[in-house]
Amino acid sequence: MKSLKYLRLFFVLLLLTNTLFAQTTDPLPSWNEGAVKSKIIEFVHKVTTKGDPDYVVPHKRIATFDNDGTLWVEYPMYTQVLFAFDRVKELAPLHPEWKTKQPFKALLEGDMKTVGKSGMKGLVEIIMATHSGMTEDAFNAQSAKWLKTTQNPHFKHLYKELVYQPQLELLNYLRANGFKTFIVSGGGVAFMRSVSQEVYGIPTYQVIGSSIVSKYKKVEGENELVRVPKINFINDEAGKPVGIYNHIGKRPIFAFGNSDHDIEMIEYTKETKGLSLALFVHHTDSSREFAYDRKSHVGKLDKALDRAKTEDWIIVDMKKDWKTIFPFNLK
Amino acid sequence: MKSLKYLRLFFVLLLLTNTLFAQTTDPLPSWNEGAVKSKIIEFVHKVTTKGDPDYVVPHKRIATFDNDGTLWVEYPMYTQVLFAFDRVKELAPLHPEWKTKQPFKALLEGDMKTVGKSGMKGLVEIIMATHSGMTEDAFNAQSAKWLKTTQNPHFKHLYKELVYQPQLELLNYLRANGFKTFIVSGGGVAFMRSVSQEVYGIPTYQVIGSSIVSKYKKVEGENELVRVPKINFINDEAGKPVGIYNHIGKRPIFAFGNSDHDIEMIEYTKETKGLSLALFVHHTDSSREFAYDRKSHVGKLDKALDRAKTEDWIIVDMKKDWKTIFPFNLK
Repeated sequence: MKSLKYLRLFFVLLLLTNTLFAQTTDPLPSWNEGAVKSKIIEFVHKVTTKGDPDYVVPHKRIATFDNDGTLWVEYPMYTQVLFAFDRVKELAPLHPEWKTKQPFKALLEGDMKTVGKSGMKGLVEIIMATHSGMTEDAFNAQSAKWLKTTQNPHFKHLYKELVYQPQLELLNYLRANGFKTFIVSGGGVAFMRSVSQEVYGIPTYQVIGSSIVSKYKKVEGENELVRVPKINFINDEAGKPVGIYNHIGKRPIFAFGNSDHDIEMIEYTKETKGLSLALFVHHTDSSREFAYDRKSHVGKLDKALDRAKTEDWIIVDMKKDWKTIFPFNLK
Repeated sequence: MKSLKYLRLFFVLLLLTNTLFAQTTDPLPSWNEGAVKSKIIEFVHKVTTKGDPDYVVPHKRIATFDNDGTLWVEYPMYTQVLFAFDRVKELAPLHPEWKTKQPFKALLEGDMKTVGKSGMKGLVEIIMATHSGMTEDAFNAQSAKWLKTTQNPHFKHLYKELVYQPQLELLNYLRANGFKTFIVSGGGVAFMRSVSQEVYGIPTYQVIGSSIVSKYKKVEGENELVRVPKINFINDEAGKPVGIYNHIGKRPIFAFGNSDHDIEMIEYTKETKGLSLALFVHHTDSSREFAYDRKSHVGKLDKALDRAKTEDWIIVDMKKDWKTIFPFNLK
């Protein structure tokens, strides 16, 4: 049986090639060598190696990532807020009352100082005016279109392109090792879902976020979900573990955030039974991105920086640990 | 290159074997041949065949299943209600006040008529008393233990075994064809999740259900989610499309229910763009399971039976369409 002999040889060669390939291919090429990268790879190796005391069965390999400032740019202002501002300008002709009503008046006049002074109350009014009153499909189309066609003036790239290359590699690496990757963000869930599959390879049903109430009703003879101007859930701070429990039903074993708003998600993850890994992006790179932390108005990283000194939380130094920041920087 | 020639031959043979195997293996052996089975197989074939006008990309292949009466037995009383009744009996020594307080008094005395008369209000009291006040982990352990050790007196099998074999095959068949299978039930999400992976192969994060509020707080020094006696969301009737939108973020292309409580989920699914399939289990089998529909106190199937006559909804006749009902009936 000469054919069998050749076949056997073929499979042995195939196996050898795969093994060699696995040993020589870096799964995280945009991460610089160092303690952080080693810890990630060591963690993934342990939880996926059968027989290892830290082995975790695939359906428990849950990884959660914050979005703003962890997977994409959030500075100097959250992308979704900029979307809402643009929508106000687009919708203004339909709302003559905005000419005299704050904070819309100020926004339309470009008076951002007055908009800022309107605080959270003003922001919620702007969000509700731009994020409700339409069907889910209409909103999805609006937000997807904006993200795919609007340029960030600082980076001169589309908003959907301002995602961190090292994190895209990490998401792929985790998925290749049997993890389910989830977004767990304070941002609006529908806004993120409109591009999550395309941008991160994360399906809509693995995106957890804040939401407004939806009602099932007839619109022009069709059964639709209509977004109404009422907050349903705020998936932020202590809301993150609640959102994770409501959606996933179990604790993550891996969590990645970038601000004090992620502390509860990190605590919840680190108190899971068995091995877990928790990381924060520290924005330290004023030349390639931005440098901000303890005193920032977005993505404030203060308490977490202190607690990371004594707890088993990893601080990822963007400047030091990331070789490349954005996909469009790849050579 | 004789080896290459052998290799090529080997792969051709492998391909042929696979094709033959695919053609001769019935993916739904517990479904009787007939119109219903043909429609399911035809639908799956169309949406998974590249080039077919009805082809659907994998991440849009969303299938949603009701649970009670669709995946497992619900008659004469929902499994979760029976669990709550048993928990009241177990917890009674800690609640001396129940000896005089309705509906607990009646339940402890076995006076089910009075329990029934307490209606939805009484039932909610029983659910809250047995489903809140503990951490998520403690509740998961209690419900999993009950489902895995308690016998249904009618069938003389464990509750977790009273799942429909044809549906297990259908879930597997859909998943093998790139579908994501979700449970979308009026039942409590945590109760179902405690066995969904083991019983249906459905991970916790693909189970959508009703829920009570959870709070993130310290319990004995640990950060826990504690279940509090307040309803968070009722995932039933018009709540089902809302639950689907909040969790999945897109319309299913396949939905399976068994009662009028599933009508909105079915409508929402059938109005998706592109091909979709919608089915209802009709409980017609008084000898192998139960026969009930228009006048039943659980799983009432009335309006849906009428609407199925004119709409493109498939009624699955349990007696006629299912060869085997339960896994333990398999020879």
